[in-house]
Amino acid sequence: DVDTVDYQTSHRTITLPGLVNIAAFVPGLAKEGSKDFERVTKESIASGFSMIRVLPLGVENSLTDAKALQTAQANSKKAHCDFNFSVAATSTNAQQLGQLTTQVGSLFIPFNHLSGNINKVAAVTSHFEIWPAQKPIMTDAKTTDLASILLLASLHNRNVHVTSVTTKDDIRLIALSKEKGLKVTCDVAVYTLFFTQEDYPECTSLPTVKDQKALWENLASIDCFSVGSLPYQLAHDTKNGPCPSVGIVDSLPLLITAVCDGLLTIEDVKLRLHDNPKAIFELHDQPLSSVEVEMDRSYVLQPFEVWSPLVGRKLKATVKRVTFENTTVTLDGRVNSDGTLGSQASVTFHNPVSNAPAAAPEPSRAP
Amino acid sequence: DVDTVDYQTSHRTITLPGLVNIAAFVPGLAKEGSKDFERVTKESIASGFSMIRVLPLGVENSLTDAKALQTAQANSKKAHCDFNFSVAATSTNAQQLGQLTTQVGSLFIPFNHLSGNINKVAAVTSHFEIWPAQKPIMTDAKTTDLASILLLASLHNRNVHVTSVTTKDDIRLIALSKEKGLKVTCDVAVYTLFFTQEDYPECTSLPTVKDQKALWENLASIDCFSVGSLPYQLAHDTKNGPCPSVGIVDSLPLLITAVCDGLLTIEDVKLRLHDNPKAIFELHDQPLSSVEVEMDRSYVLQPFEVWSPLVGRKLKATVKRVTFENTTVTLDGRVNSDGTLGSQASVTFHNPVSNAPAAAPEPSRAP
Ligand SMILES: [Zn+2]
Ligand SMILES: [Zn+2]
Ligand SMILES: [Zn+2]
Ligand SMILES: [Zn+2]
Ligand SMILES: [Zn+2]
Ligand SMILES: [Zn+2]
Ligand SMILES: [Zn+2]
Ligand SMILES: [Zn+2]
Repeated sequence: DVDTVDYQTSHRTITLPGLVNIAAFVPGLAKEGSKDFERVTKESIASGFSMIRVLPLGVENSLTDAKALQTAQANSKKAHCDFNFSVAATSTNAQQLGQLTTQVGSLFIPFNHLSGNINKVAAVTSHFEIWPAQKPIMTDAKTTDLASILLLASLHNRNVHVTSVTTKDDIRLIALSKEKGLKVTCDVAVYTLFFTQEDYPECTSLPTVKDQKALWENLASIDCFSVGSLPYQLAHDTKNGPCPSVGIVDSLPLLITAVCDGLLTIEDVKLRLHDNPKAIFELHDQPLSSVEVEMDRSYVLQPFEVWSPLVGRKLKATVKRVTFENTTVTLDGRVNSDGTLGSQASVTFHNPVSNAPAAAPEPSRAP
Repeated sequence: DVDTVDYQTSHRTITLPGLVNIAAFVPGLAKEGSKDFERVTKESIASGFSMIRVLPLGVENSLTDAKALQTAQANSKKAHCDFNFSVAATSTNAQQLGQLTTQVGSLFIPFNHLSGNINKVAAVTSHFEIWPAQKPIMTDAKTTDLASILLLASLHNRNVHVTSVTTKDDIRLIALSKEKGLKVTCDVAVYTLFFTQEDYPECTSLPTVKDQKALWENLASIDCFSVGSLPYQLAHDTKNGPCPSVGIVDSLPLLITAVCDGLLTIEDVKLRLHDNPKAIFELHDQPLSSVEVEMDRSYVLQPFEVWSPLVGRKLKATVKRVTFENTTVTLDGRVNSDGTLGSQASVTFHNPVSNAPAAAPEPSRAP
């Protein structure tokens, strides 16, 4: 599918460190015997993500107790990249989750991805008071819920990471909060930057044109990019038979094409898919992992087994090679991985004394 | 109605300064030709309140524009006590209200007393950005809305006063916010301290027993007492034909009876019905006004023309005399006022340079 190459254009290859998807969505996460986790990790490593943070974003597959977490862990015997899980807060499980902190990457406080929203101030407060101070807390809160959780985080002197920001109001609130010294970080899903409700009116999870514009204008306030559950949602809403791995492969080509078009720099991408994720979520480094991307060669994406809104569109970047644990696991679209190299990772801290971000980010190795 | 005196008990008379109801409810506030304002001010002065801050708490009578404010002002030609009005924020009227600041006591941001709640962060933010920094802002926000508005106030470095707190969660959030240096003050309606949903299951505006207990335990975090719209709501919900002046006359006897019972001190009452209201809302002092209350004489309240949940209950305090503008306007329950003494008050600042509370509160003159 990458053969339609425009030979008029000069091109170059850049090498990035192994990337992190800080908000990976696995549909059958806590469903016994599900192969979704394996598929998602395989698509991830093929796409340049050597680490994924799996968030419990689904209604049915939410990790809200030890049993669900055990099922998810049992489903993760075959892992094509490094990973960890996050548990989901409910109105009543603060104490229970307190027992699972050493097994997970963060606490996720859902407002929009779960039935039975945890919209009580007291419930959120109980999680802030029990969850260990050094472990990350994430939320998908929006509008008033977002303001509310930012206040509670501030009152309890806690960091909070807001995932999948989609609106002008929310990014402005986050930018203002950062300006005033609140310890808040955020990510925007890659699809949010490139598709709008104008393209797909049936998908209200996409931003409006105006909201998308505001997100680009506030790029400096966006700490990370993520894949998130938006591609799956878009496939569902457009009746394109969502599959677990939708959207993952599109992320890096979309972002690097934006680099070719002058909308982003390579450093912008590396910062938001590697440096900041590692620092914010205290993820171990993966020095034996890297991604080679070929830039500036235009091609039109052809239909593939996984649906993509990019089919028929012109792109200018391709993942050529992915190296993981010193092994070439992907070369020119062919994946060579048996699922034994990935491991559950970064659930305890390397250095619990220091809470500071990594001192010197690794340079991107653009030749 | 105060003749059933228990002569067994010794009694004493205390003199308080003229009191302030910081959250007065006037049903026909912006209804042309309504006499509700006159009735409310008359009941207020008869009950010891020489100043009322009228909040736009009703759905139909909300002061959201210049026209409504003009109607309210036209209805206030006869005023038996001093007063001012507050205007109500909507999603779209921030600019308009900015023109009315010199005519009103504060901006009220309603979340629970209006149809068309202003629950958008951006709408509230626009009010914070336009409303003058020195003029008070009040809100009736609860739970998540309360957390949200506290964050926005904090980000914009604004004081905010929360009216009619009714729950344990909300008073705790306010207490914690105060502790962390946020500039927030609050009031609790008098009825909230003395009636619960156990007494009147049909009135969900009343606190639960547990919530009421938490309010008493957090008395130190309660800056003011108010009459509010709760008495009207209770009369409505219990089908006791709400009238504009319900609940006003009950407030001081309830509070001073609580003093007799050792639940409060006179200073607690004076602080929350005089000192703090004057300081928080920068109200002019009324040195020619005072209230004499007879304490420690038990009596059972007899039915009166205005419904009261206190009928048949034992009380231990009676308003004996109210002096306003150096004139005795109430003596032993008889009101002698023609509505010419009250005036619109404290809508501009006495001393715009200083934003600090009054240096020395006037002492209560208990003999
Ligand atoms: Zn590893
Ligand atoms: Zn706490
Ligand atoms: Zn569906
Ligand atoms: Zn690295
Ligand atoms: Zn006066
Ligand atoms: Zn602002
Ligand atoms: Zn009704
Ligand atoms: Zn005074």
